[in-house]
Amino acid sequence: MDYSEESIALHQETRGKIEIRSKVSLKTKHDLSLAYTPGVAAVCMEIGLDRRKSYTLTNRANQVAIVSDGTAILGLGNLGPEAAMPVMEGKSIIFKEFADIDAIPLCINSTDVEDIIKFCKLIEPSFAGINLEDISAPRCFEILERLENELSIPVFHDDQDGTAIVTLAAIINACRVTGRSLHELHVVVNGAGAAGIAIARLLIHARVKEVVLVDTRGAIYEGRPGMNPIKQKIAEISNKAKFQGDLQSALTGADVFVGVSIGNIVTEEMIAGMNTAPFIFAMANPEPEIMPEPAFKAGAGIVGTGRSDLSNQVNNALVFPGLFKGLLSTGIKKVTPEIKTAVANSIAYSINPTRDNLMPTTFNKKVVENIVAVIAQTAEGVDFTEKKCDTAPETHAATLIN
Amino acid sequence: MDYSEESIALHQETRGKIEIRSKVSLKTKHDLSLAYTPGVAAVCMEIGLDRRKSYTLTNRANQVAIVSDGTAILGLGNLGPEAAMPVMEGKSIIFKEFADIDAIPLCINSTDVEDIIKFCKLIEPSFAGINLEDISAPRCFEILERLENELSIPVFHDDQDGTAIVTLAAIINACRVTGRSLHELHVVVNGAGAAGIAIARLLIHARVKEVVLVDTRGAIYEGRPGMNPIKQKIAEISNKAKFQGDLQSALTGADVFVGVSIGNIVTEEMIAGMNTAPFIFAMANPEPEIMPEPAFKAGAGIVGTGRSDLSNQVNNALVFPGLFKGLLSTGIKKVTPEIKTAVANSIAYSINPTRDNLMPTTFNKKVVENIVAVIAQTAEGVDFTEKKCDTAPETHAATLIN
Repeated sequence: MDYSEESIALHQETRGKIEIRSKVSLKTKHDLSLAYTPGVAAVCMEIGLDRRKSYTLTNRANQVAIVSDGTAILGLGNLGPEAAMPVMEGKSIIFKEFADIDAIPLCINSTDVEDIIKFCKLIEPSFAGINLEDISAPRCFEILERLENELSIPVFHDDQDGTAIVTLAAIINACRVTGRSLHELHVVVNGAGAAGIAIARLLIHARVKEVVLVDTRGAIYEGRPGMNPIKQKIAEISNKAKFQGDLQSALTGADVFVGVSIGNIVTEEMIAGMNTAPFIFAMANPEPEIMPEPAFKAGAGIVGTGRSDLSNQVNNALVFPGLFKGLLSTGIKKVTPEIKTAVANSIAYSINPTRDNLMPTTFNKKVVENIVAVIAQTAEGVDFTEKKCDTAPETHAATLIN
Repeated sequence: MDYSEESIALHQETRGKIEIRSKVSLKTKHDLSLAYTPGVAAVCMEIGLDRRKSYTLTNRANQVAIVSDGTAILGLGNLGPEAAMPVMEGKSIIFKEFADIDAIPLCINSTDVEDIIKFCKLIEPSFAGINLEDISAPRCFEILERLENELSIPVFHDDQDGTAIVTLAAIINACRVTGRSLHELHVVVNGAGAAGIAIARLLIHARVKEVVLVDTRGAIYEGRPGMNPIKQKIAEISNKAKFQGDLQSALTGADVFVGVSIGNIVTEEMIAGMNTAPFIFAMANPEPEIMPEPAFKAGAGIVGTGRSDLSNQVNNALVFPGLFKGLLSTGIKKVTPEIKTAVANSIAYSINPTRDNLMPTTFNKKVVENIVAVIAQTAEGVDFTEKKCDTAPETHAATLIN
């Protein structure tokens, strides 16, 4: 189904999707004297003496900035900051609806790495966290890494780690449904942008047996000429067999296909050449790398896509509301690989999956609750990596959060 | 009355004063498909092809950034950006309550002129206007002037022009009550920061007979040694008599005192030395330059302060909601002296003033309506400067907006 016309009509009618509301009454002179001058002066002085009080006397503790430069909007590419706004407003209302977080879209007028970093540092006093969004690779890697070190509030790039976490959750549940283990899987990730690199990193951290990243020039392997530093680095820890070749040969015998690339580039023949009943996660938007019907016809065991109108949607919106709610409530600053793995597990274990109902929906309230709980436990020093990452369900029934 | 404890308690209870709300439903998969992916992609592409559509397909047209560096918070000085947040949240809910505008507080981590200008240019694509707030002089003058030239959206520094406009409105109504004319008034403005400079500029534009600015070193006159460029410039157009001396001598024979300085520095003796029944606007916060009782005792004809718990509050909150509503609805970019004068008139003429009820209250819905109407007429080329600025009420009854 094509939602384009209906969506444009909705946006025209409501003129966007967010608004500001007051949490206090402003109907009398007395109300004004408390919320504004003269009463507010005392509140300012309290914070002036101890800046941490901005977390209890303003909305800061519940406030996240969604920062984008509009260079990688959905699968549409660089359309500029104004055009990114509808996505950021969409994320903002998802933040509010599912996690009661106030997220402010800030689409900015520069694609320069230093400008974006500077911008995030400038707004730090007004927010409890920053969600980077739709910033293209490879700039996004440096921006995230620098900000993780230079900010005192948590920063998260949804296109990297949101996608990586939900992908790991999907693979975990595919393992649960089929009785397989993460540690025996050979995974091919097609697309080496923000999402592909982050997925590969997280799967390696979760001790998947083999991860091979493929870009437009074929498999990424150590020593491949002409790679940027990000690809060089991932080449060192992935593709242990140093396989060289195109997507079709990379897929031969593989257990899992993860697509974060472009539509319709996987054929039935490629699927047929994979190991028995492979997992196919074709997440390009809006057109998947292959549609479920031909994938199943060619022998796929499990199929998921990024689309909300098909079964098994693998959707970042399962991650960011709960993740930020967990970060804001614990005060955790850095989203470590351990946290990412724990969150992936908590999403996966929010349902009892089946082949056609692999993932919880965004409307499943347990998802946010479980993510928040697991982050709180991580904050208390529980190591969820070992405890929950080997996903054969029979051995881990006791550790289910569900 | 001291509102400090009650205000702190309120802020603690509500954890700040603003929140984000969704303008669309997000209860079903279909809702999500329209507000977010896949439907939102078509909305992004529309804006990608024509960026002006960000004004009809997102909340941008109704969205204003309140930008502060926290260097001049109320009368409290430089307490840092976190401490400015309660004031900015207060302004935000005033914007929403009185003009239905969504204003986002952004308190930033730098006091550098270039950083602040850069920041405003970066956020331009997300907003329809920028309200600068509590940025100290003299940096605020350069920042405003540069941004007026370098941004494509309107920018307004409330501490300068908001204060200037509401002061002019108060003087206009004092003239109406007493049957005097602006053009015969000798005005002394004490305090040559953001507000004082802007007040002097606007009063001169409104053809007040004489304006003398006084700072901590006494009257500002052309050629006074050691002045910054802003003071040098205002010296050229104010104090035509090149008066030199302190506040007390400056006030001798003057018709109006405007205080935007510090509490309790005007004595009864100074008031007694002024012309008959002078207008006293003692707007320092929270302590006025002189309280109404001693001012009246010393012979004042009209007294106003910045305080909400005294009669005749001269309050910026009368200006910025309507002013921005007018700018956003007309698309006017620059707040010219003509617009400022017209807005001052429209505020003044929102009521029939008396000595003890000189100004409309913030809750008077006519204020915003009248400001919006007058800006719309200005946009159509009506010159309100001549039409409404000479304020003898008998001659201008026909031009009242009220």
